[in-house]
Amino acid sequence: MTTITGVRVSDVRFPTSDELHGSDAMNKDGDYSAAYVELITDDPHLSGYGFTFTIGRGNDVCVLAAELRAAILIGRPVADVVGDLGGIYRELKSDSQLRWLGPEKGVIHLATAAVMNAVWDLAARAAGKPLWRLLAEMTPAELVSVADFQYITDALTQDEAREMLEEMAPTRGQRIAELEASGYPCYTTSAGWLGYSDEKLRRLCQEAVDAGYRHIKLKVGANLEDDIRRCAIAREVIGWDAALMIDANQMWDVPEAIEWVQALAEFKPLWIEEPTSPDDVLGHAAVRKAVHPIGVATGEHGMNRVLFKQMFQAEAIDFCQLDSARLASINEILSVYLMAKKFGVPVCPHAGGVGLCELVQHLSVFDYVAVSGTLENRVTEFVDHLHEHFVDPCIVENGAYRLPSQPGYSAQMHAASVAEYTYPDGSQWAARSAASAEMAALSS
Amino acid sequence: MTTITGVRVSDVRFPTSDELHGSDAMNKDGDYSAAYVELITDDPHLSGYGFTFTIGRGNDVCVLAAELRAAILIGRPVADVVGDLGGIYRELKSDSQLRWLGPEKGVIHLATAAVMNAVWDLAARAAGKPLWRLLAEMTPAELVSVADFQYITDALTQDEAREMLEEMAPTRGQRIAELEASGYPCYTTSAGWLGYSDEKLRRLCQEAVDAGYRHIKLKVGANLEDDIRRCAIAREVIGWDAALMIDANQMWDVPEAIEWVQALAEFKPLWIEEPTSPDDVLGHAAVRKAVHPIGVATGEHGMNRVLFKQMFQAEAIDFCQLDSARLASINEILSVYLMAKKFGVPVCPHAGGVGLCELVQHLSVFDYVAVSGTLENRVTEFVDHLHEHFVDPCIVENGAYRLPSQPGYSAQMHAASVAEYTYPDGSQWAARSAASAEMAALSS
Repeated sequence: MTTITGVRVSDVRFPTSDELHGSDAMNKDGDYSAAYVELITDDPHLSGYGFTFTIGRGNDVCVLAAELRAAILIGRPVADVVGDLGGIYRELKSDSQLRWLGPEKGVIHLATAAVMNAVWDLAARAAGKPLWRLLAEMTPAELVSVADFQYITDALTQDEAREMLEEMAPTRGQRIAELEASGYPCYTTSAGWLGYSDEKLRRLCQEAVDAGYRHIKLKVGANLEDDIRRCAIAREVIGWDAALMIDANQMWDVPEAIEWVQALAEFKPLWIEEPTSPDDVLGHAAVRKAVHPIGVATGEHGMNRVLFKQMFQAEAIDFCQLDSARLASINEILSVYLMAKKFGVPVCPHAGGVGLCELVQHLSVFDYVAVSGTLENRVTEFVDHLHEHFVDPCIVENGAYRLPSQPGYSAQMHAASVAEYTYPDGSQWAARSAASAEMAALSS
Repeated sequence: MTTITGVRVSDVRFPTSDELHGSDAMNKDGDYSAAYVELITDDPHLSGYGFTFTIGRGNDVCVLAAELRAAILIGRPVADVVGDLGGIYRELKSDSQLRWLGPEKGVIHLATAAVMNAVWDLAARAAGKPLWRLLAEMTPAELVSVADFQYITDALTQDEAREMLEEMAPTRGQRIAELEASGYPCYTTSAGWLGYSDEKLRRLCQEAVDAGYRHIKLKVGANLEDDIRRCAIAREVIGWDAALMIDANQMWDVPEAIEWVQALAEFKPLWIEEPTSPDDVLGHAAVRKAVHPIGVATGEHGMNRVLFKQMFQAEAIDFCQLDSARLASINEILSVYLMAKKFGVPVCPHAGGVGLCELVQHLSVFDYVAVSGTLENRVTEFVDHLHEHFVDPCIVENGAYRLPSQPGYSAQMHAASVAEYTYPDGSQWAARSAASAEMAALSS
C-alpha cells in the first residue's frame, strides 16, 4: 500500500525584478515566486507537486503555512487520499485554529491551494492521466461531491449543479476532439508590462500579432498620458479587429476608475481588469454600469468562492479571472466554474506568474469539455516566462494552448531549478547576496 | 534622539482549550494566542507593544509575517514614526511584495495590525497619554490625515469625514466627563460558551445579572434543540428586560441561517451574530431582511475597510463588530468608525480573546467622545479571561469599562507571562510536552 511519507515545501524565488518582467502600476518590482509543495510517497515513481504563487518577500510565510496545512497528509495511504478528494479537502479546511487566520483568505488559503494542488496532481499521476482528463472522466455526481458548496447554496444548489453537468456529459467526447485539433484560445500579456519602453511595447505587440494572437493586454493606471500614448501604439500595431484589454491592477478608487476608463474608451478596450479593490463587489458593479460597453474583469485576487458568488449575484463582472493558486484548488475552482455557468459569466483564468499557465490550461479545457461547452468570449491568459523551469511546460501555438498529455497537473519543476532558485541558499540567491555584499564593501 | 533599535515578536499561546473557554460551534478547541510585538528603543523607559490575536496553530505564521512587516521600523527615530502616523502606515502598506499575500486580508493584514498596534501604543506612551485620549485630542484634520481612505471614497470622502468630526469637536470634553463618571457599557460572553453544561450556563447567567450586566450572549449553531433549551435557560435567569444576543460563528449557509434564527425568534434575541460567512455582504443583507426585527451583527472576521464599506452600502448589518487586531490598527479602524457614523450603524467592537478587551475600551471611548456622540444601541463585548497577563488590564464595574488612565494602548503583557507561555519553549508548553511524552510512553 503506497503511503505519503513526507512533505517538502520549498521557497523558490526568481529574480524577475531585474528586468521589470511583470511590472504593473501596483506591483513595480515583483520577484515571481512559488511556495512549492512536494508530497513524497514510498513509491519512488509517485509524488505529487503543487504550489501557490507570490511575488517575493513573504513567500517564506506561505511556505510555513503550507507545512502546517500539509502535516495531516503524512502517513496516509495514497489510495485513501486520492480516493476521497472531497473528504481530504474538507478535513484540511476544518482545522479551526488554522481557519481563524483567514478564514479562507490570504496566506492560509494560499497554503491550502498549494497543498491541495499537490494532492490533485498526485491523484492525476496515480491515475496516469493529465488532470483535465481525470476531471473530464468524473461523473456529474462525482464532480459535485468534490466541489465546495459551503456558503454558496443560496446561489447554486448541488442538484442544480449536477443537472447542469449532466446536460453536458453526453457530448464531452466531441469537445475533447475539437480541442485536441485546435487547442484552447489564449491571449498574451507579455507585451504590455508597465516597465517596458514604447519601442519594446511596439516590437512585442508586433511579435504577438505575428505569432497569431488576437488579444493583447496592456498594464495601465500609473499615468493617464502614458496610458493614452501606449494604447495608441498598441492599436496602431494590432489594428481594430484584434481585442485590446487594459489592466489597472487595483490602482483606483471607484470614482477614479470610472473617470480613467472613460478617458481610455476611444481605444475600445474589451475589458478593464482590476479597476479597484478586488474585495469590492459593489464597487465593481458600479464601475461596470458606468463604463458599459467596456467589460469589467477581475479575479486574480478573488479570495474565495464567496467573493465570486457575490460578483455574480451583483452582476459586477463580465469576465471571471479566477486564479488557480489563490482559490483552494479544484475543489473550490469547480464551485466557481459552476456558479459562472449558472450566471452566464465567461471564465478567463488569470495566468502568468510562476507556473500558473501550466495549471490553468487544465482548467480551461475541463471547463469547455464538461461545464460551459462554449468558447464564446473565453480566452485564457498566457505569459511567456519561466516555463523552462517546468518538467511538462505548457505549449502555445497559434494563440492557443495545446492539450497537456502527461499525467498530472503540469506542476512539477525541475529539481535543478528548485535547488538553484531556493531562497536564500540556492546558488542564484547566494551569488546575488555575495555580489551585493561586495558592492556594499566597495561603496563604503 | 530616541531611535527604534529592534523588534521582538513572540509566539504567545494560552492553553484555553483545556477548559473549553472560548468554545463555539465553529471553534471547538481554541488555544487563545497572540503574535506579540515589542518595538524596542534606545530609551530603556520607552517601548511600544501590540499584537494580533489567533486561536493557536498558525500563530507562528503571524509571528513571521509581523517580523517582515516591522523590519522597516528598525533604525527610525521615534519622533519620525509617531510624528507621522499616517505616513508610516502607508509606507508599511505599500510593500507590494507583501501586499500580494492579501491584499489587505488574512495573515499579512493581521501582521500589519500587530505592528501598527505597537506603533500606536508607542505614540501614546511617548505622549504620556492613554491612547483614547491621544486620539480624542487630535484635531478633525489630523484624524482624517491618519485614516485610510483608499478604496472608500465612493462611500465617504475626506471632506465629509472632517465635517462630521468637526461637528462633534466642541463637545468632546463633556462626553469625556460623562464616561469618567459612568464608564462605557459592555456585555458579557463569558456565560455562554458552547462547551459549558446547562448548570454552568445557568450559574454564569445569574452571576452576570448579579454583576450588573444588562446584555448576555450565547453561542448557538451546533444543534437546534440544544440552542432552544439553552436560550430558554438564559431567558429564565435574565428575564425579558435584559438583552439576549446569539452568535453562530459562521456555521450556516444563508437559507439555513434564516430558518434557524426564525426557530429561535421566540427568545427575542437582540441580534444574531455571524450567521454565515464573514465575507458574504449580500448574504448578510438577505438574512437581515428575513429575520427582522432581530438584528444582524458581524465584523470580528471583517477583513478590512472595503468589506465594512459594502456591509454599510448594502444595509447588511444592524451592528458593526470591528476587531482591533484584525483591522490594520487605528488607521483603518478610524475609517470604519467614520463610515459607520455616516451610515448610521452602531459599532459594538468584538473583544475577548487575548487582550482584545484591553484594546477596544480605547476605541469605544474615542468613538463616543469624537465620532458618534451617542451610546444608543452601543455595547462593547467583555470576556473575563486572561486579563491577569496584562500590565494595565481593563477594569469592568457594573457592566461598564472604566476609562483607562495609564499611557499607551493597554497592550503590554507581563514579561513573565510572555516567557511562560511562549510556544513551544515557554515553561507552560515545555511541561505539557514532557507530560504528553510521558503519557505516550505509559500507554505504549
